Amino acid sequence: MTNSEFTRADGRATDQLRSVRITRGFTSNPAGSVLVEFGNTRVMCTASVEEGVPRFKRDSGEGWLTAEYSMLPAATHERMPRESMRGKVKGRTHEISRLVGRSLRAAVDLSQLGENTIQLDCDVLQADGGTRTAAITGAYVALADAIAVLKKRGVVPGEPLRAPVAAVSVGVIDGHVCLDLPYEEDSRAEVDMNVVMTEEGRFVEIQGTGEHAEFDRDQLNELLDVATKGCKELIAAQKAALEG
Amino acid sequence: MTNSEFTRADGRATDQLRSVRITRGFTSNPAGSVLVEFGNTRVMCTASVEEGVPRFKRDSGEGWLTAEYSMLPAATHERMPRESMRGKVKGRTHEISRLVGRSLRAAVDLSQLGENTIQLDCDVLQADGGTRTAAITGAYVALADAIAVLKKRGVVPGEPLRAPVAAVSVGVIDGHVCLDLPYEEDSRAEVDMNVVMTEEGRFVEIQGTGEHAEFDRDQLNELLDVATKGCKELIAAQKAALEG
Amino acid sequence: MTNSEFTRADGRATDQLRSVRITRGFTSNPAGSVLVEFGNTRVMCTASVEEGVPRFKRDSGEGWLTAEYSMLPAATHERMPRESMRGKVKGRTHEISRLVGRSLRAAVDLSQLGENTIQLDCDVLQADGGTRTAAITGAYVALADAIAVLKKRGVVPGEPLRAPVAAVSVGVIDGHVCLDLPYEEDSRAEVDMNVVMTEEGRFVEIQGTGEHAEFDRDQLNELLDVATKGCKELIAAQKAALEG
Amino acid sequence: MTNSEFTRADGRATDQLRSVRITRGFTSNPAGSVLVEFGNTRVMCTASVEEGVPRFKRDSGEGWLTAEYSMLPAATHERMPRESMRGKVKGRTHEISRLVGRSLRAAVDLSQLGENTIQLDCDVLQADGGTRTAAITGAYVALADAIAVLKKRGVVPGEPLRAPVAAVSVGVIDGHVCLDLPYEEDSRAEVDMNVVMTEEGRFVEIQGTGEHAEFDRDQLNELLDVATKGCKELIAAQKAALEG
Amino acid sequence: MTNSEFTRADGRATDQLRSVRITRGFTSNPAGSVLVEFGNTRVMCTASVEEGVPRFKRDSGEGWLTAEYSMLPAATHERMPRESMRGKVKGRTHEISRLVGRSLRAAVDLSQLGENTIQLDCDVLQADGGTRTAAITGAYVALADAIAVLKKRGVVPGEPLRAPVAAVSVGVIDGHVCLDLPYEEDSRAEVDMNVVMTEEGRFVEIQGTGEHAEFDRDQLNELLDVATKGCKELIAAQKAALEG
Amino acid sequence: MTNSEFTRADGRATDQLRSVRITRGFTSNPAGSVLVEFGNTRVMCTASVEEGVPRFKRDSGEGWLTAEYSMLPAATHERMPRESMRGKVKGRTHEISRLVGRSLRAAVDLSQLGENTIQLDCDVLQADGGTRTAAITGAYVALADAIAVLKKRGVVPGEPLRAPVAAVSVGVIDGHVCLDLPYEEDSRAEVDMNVVMTEEGRFVEIQGTGEHAEFDRDQLNELLDVATKGCKELIAAQKAALEG
Repeated sequence: MTNSEFTRADGRATDQLRSVRITRGFTSNPAGSVLVEFGNTRVMCTASVEEGVPRFKRDSGEGWLTAEYSMLPAATHERMPRESMRGKVKGRTHEISRLVGRSLRAAVDLSQLGENTIQLDCDVLQADGGTRTAAITGAYVALADAIAVLKKRGVVPGEPLRAPVAAVSVGVIDGHVCLDLPYEEDSRAEVDMNVVMTEEGRFVEIQGTGEHAEFDRDQLNELLDVATKGCKELIAAQKAALEG
Repeated sequence: MTNSEFTRADGRATDQLRSVRITRGFTSNPAGSVLVEFGNTRVMCTASVEEGVPRFKRDSGEGWLTAEYSMLPAATHERMPRESMRGKVKGRTHEISRLVGRSLRAAVDLSQLGENTIQLDCDVLQADGGTRTAAITGAYVALADAIAVLKKRGVVPGEPLRAPVAAVSVGVIDGHVCLDLPYEEDSRAEVDMNVVMTEEGRFVEIQGTGEHAEFDRDQLNELLDVATKGCKELIAAQKAALEG
Repeated sequence: MTNSEFTRADGRATDQLRSVRITRGFTSNPAGSVLVEFGNTRVMCTASVEEGVPRFKRDSGEGWLTAEYSMLPAATHERMPRESMRGKVKGRTHEISRLVGRSLRAAVDLSQLGENTIQLDCDVLQADGGTRTAAITGAYVALADAIAVLKKRGVVPGEPLRAPVAAVSVGVIDGHVCLDLPYEEDSRAEVDMNVVMTEEGRFVEIQGTGEHAEFDRDQLNELLDVATKGCKELIAAQKAALEG
Repeated sequence: MTNSEFTRADGRATDQLRSVRITRGFTSNPAGSVLVEFGNTRVMCTASVEEGVPRFKRDSGEGWLTAEYSMLPAATHERMPRESMRGKVKGRTHEISRLVGRSLRAAVDLSQLGENTIQLDCDVLQADGGTRTAAITGAYVALADAIAVLKKRGVVPGEPLRAPVAAVSVGVIDGHVCLDLPYEEDSRAEVDMNVVMTEEGRFVEIQGTGEHAEFDRDQLNELLDVATKGCKELIAAQKAALEG
Repeated sequence: MTNSEFTRADGRATDQLRSVRITRGFTSNPAGSVLVEFGNTRVMCTASVEEGVPRFKRDSGEGWLTAEYSMLPAATHERMPRESMRGKVKGRTHEISRLVGRSLRAAVDLSQLGENTIQLDCDVLQADGGTRTAAITGAYVALADAIAVLKKRGVVPGEPLRAPVAAVSVGVIDGHVCLDLPYEEDSRAEVDMNVVMTEEGRFVEIQGTGEHAEFDRDQLNELLDVATKGCKELIAAQKAALEG
Repeated sequence: MTNSEFTRADGRATDQLRSVRITRGFTSNPAGSVLVEFGNTRVMCTASVEEGVPRFKRDSGEGWLTAEYSMLPAATHERMPRESMRGKVKGRTHEISRLVGRSLRAAVDLSQLGENTIQLDCDVLQADGGTRTAAITGAYVALADAIAVLKKRGVVPGEPLRAPVAAVSVGVIDGHVCLDLPYEEDSRAEVDMNVVMTEEGRFVEIQGTGEHAEFDRDQLNELLDVATKGCKELIAAQKAALEG
């Protein structure tokens, strides 16, 4: 099958993002609160600020940042049991929470934060693929807002906010490299990859999995090219939102 | 202190609701999905439908309805730890989930539902008092939408939806009976009461607590009068939303 | 059906309590230990005293009171799994524990207690309806005994014990308002209500549920009249036990 | 120190049991319900009957018997946290539950029971040493009553009840072998042993621990002699209760 | 059946141990690390050292020793679910952990240890009966190595190591008393006993269970004779390993 | 710093593996049992076989493979609390278990396996970096042995074993790309990457994280080149072990 014959169910070009919306001030209690939408995927990202740091950081003069990701039970097509009621957090949830935390720590200089902790919460209201990449992308904006609050309060000694970090999924569908997979594509992708990137185009994290087929070096390069294009556009959207 | 001297922080009359908004189709995966707002309190209410019933209802020919209530961690002024991560659901959460379930079972005729289960999820996005009453009020609308979906699918033998059920909080603040308490009032109320009511003005549930002072029969009557007025207005809002 | 035709399975008048027994000093380790019996319902209520208060009360100069309710597995007609073995406490258990705690805090002036904590435990040995109201009624007596112990030890600065608080269930059975429902009535009541009241007849808590039918204002008033009569008789029994 | 100089705090002879009381029909819901008292130790032992057996016994034609032991939180001198609230069952609890189950399975011929399950619950109302041995001794009586109920119902094919099994603690206190230790002795015993025995004087279980000192063969023999005397007296009490 | 006709599946004499191997320095991170083998049973025993003691020992001037036993999921013939994934530790595991801790505390003088804690971990790599007795026997050697490390570091004020403690299983198979039961014998033994003993032949712990038949005093004496022989040989093996 | 000046603590070349040992038949109960060593990292990998498949695969005609990874508490330099005792599995553990499962599913053709389940367990006996990559590499050999057992039993319809899959870590240390990081390097690496690869050099999984610095496309390519060399050597070791 040649590229000219391949069409995506939603009509997008293979290297095209879904429509992206970033709404700041979505709720008012947390220091930063953002609703991020990648097509039908909608994630509420909040950044809460607490004075003090966990024990392993105490008296370090540095701050800390941590993240929790979760899906509301009715976010998916079939309702999923609530993790609090099951009494167990799923491995997938832990894994994504850790990824979001690592990714956003690349966007903050903890030594400039003072002994404050920023807690990110990414709660998926509606899931249609790419929830973890939307979460990272939205969380950066919530983080920026929270740091602005901290600075206004005068509790931050330095300039903790670094240049933007964004994330996008790429995958191989019927042999074609595609950007920003919705659920329908994600569930049948041969290869699935999430890329987290800085504004300068440097990698924060790459996670690629050959779900139904392994991939070679050429495919990897093509996947990374398309992911780089996607992250650049997402970072532009982040900056526009923060200036808006 | 006479009533003429008493003013509420938000300027409302003592028997006045906060502004109420009910948005249907808030998300698209569940059969019913509603965002309900009582002032700054915002609750996402979804109704998911599953064929089959729990074991204790099997072969009864009847359906079942159950509910879960939860707060997002950043919904409150101070962030609260996520229940799934603590590994324990708080007593308050269990208590409200059970109240929502009982209240909405009064709005459905299970014998007309067939052996289907409706699962309500009420997730508080932003909390400013009255989250349980907003949850019940919004859940009725989500339930109505879900039953319409079931009927369209042809899996419902009868007419399971009953007349609306709505809920409101009332309380005694500085000796004055007030309707629909925001957090600031709720946390210092002498008496706190939640009333769940049908369209005909019959009680589904009354829960009144003398948090800082007991209350007598006259105060109870005044509380119920004001709650009745509030529930009637909420039911009008539910009906308007469902016709809209 | 008129009242003259309606008879209760145990032959009681509709506004008559089951026989009530309150046995002080039921066990000897806790500061207060009471066996309370409402007919066949038997609850062991203990009040244990600990110096110090939970963190949120520290350095307040005030004491604290908290309660836990539980059923022994063989208390009910069908044995129920032990909550410790299931690894989960049921919502119903949490709900009742919270109710008992709130109710008894109305019977104690925490500012007079010093920084001491009173822990109430209400363990149901045999269940036949009304376990939560028996628990509240018995716990008051255990609380009174525990405060007497504290005063004898000289660790209580003031007079923390307030006037008695008692609780009773009322309900509508086949259209008739009845007092103090045993299990057989409770399980088929159209309306079920628990009322917690002080000696002066003021309400501490009202929880009414239309389990199988809603109720109107007239029924509510009748339910409250009968509950008031019941609570007065229970308070007389509490006082007799404490003088005995 | 010679025996003539050694006196026990409660004045008993070294080979004397505390006063033993066995009350049948203590509660009415379970098939067997016994309150057993060894001095101040009081344990409620119930035997509940369920048709059917756990999976590993299915289609074996045999029955099953299992046991759970637990302490009420206020049973001990210092209140202990409730295991259901901690979310964890203590190792000691598990250990004793298993001991009670093994011991009572020696008193029942499972091949004569049919595919029925007997669930024993031993809940300590008041603890003063020897709770596990009191539990075993009382559970036998509850078991006998439950089997009688099963036989009356006609669901038991054979004669499952075997001759009595009883248990007692022995220990070394200040170098002296003592029978049936109360808490004060138990907590400072050099050696602590629990012996479970049949009517014919055969051992079902021996558990001896040198808590603060090891013990030799002569001491072991002396401990077993005294335990045998104790178990014989307890079996006489069981038989008297069952005939009563 | 006379002894002359009875043969064990592995050809051993009834009072003969399986081949015993004790490998010190099995892993290098913990202060003591031993692989102990009783025939096909293989247990990794480690002793880790931590400065400080648990709260109940703080400021006592004494140290503490505690133990945890566990089976790897594939250690047994049929794979068993991993306890961490089930979210629950089995009663058997708790019971053995407690036994190992008690037994090894008899091998250490806590008053000579300073405020240090020794944590023993006994992880069964391969199970063929006698895992708890192998664990105790191997843990003594790991403990000795860990104390030597502490002494080298100069943090131990005295001589905490006592004379060796070892453990062995004995049982009755087809009416014959046998030493050191492999799984095949253990699972069908009429009587099963574990004996923990010091070098001087004094008992630390005796746990005997009549699994399928009770036992009398003569059998008990025979069991103890054989166990004593086994423990002496195990202690010789421990000493050889520590000198090696 | 140029490459000529950079030396690794253990003297290896930057693209050199630690010494690798693969021991088959390490224990005898599971169908496959392997001890794999990458330098001081030692992981016991077992493959257990169960007839039948989980519910979501039932009646598919296909088999299933799943994996669990865990660390023994004393595997690390500082002892870590046992997950079963904490009652919670750490996110890191879940994450690695999922990675091992996905990686090994690439080495098996489930449609050829019949409705059998292979359960891999990777238990780290000693940790010195690269435990997850050693686990994957060793698990392939255990898997091969288990499939051979299944084929001998005649329960496998086809040829489920695919060509080998191996995994290795690479990282950037002081600006130099290094292969197979021990703990000392891993903990201070600027970039850390795990690569899972098939015999033909195709990627099964890439997980790269800029822990302390982001990385660009050139570094990524260098990391992948070195990882490819490492995986080829590991696959040679796997094949040698399986032929041995």
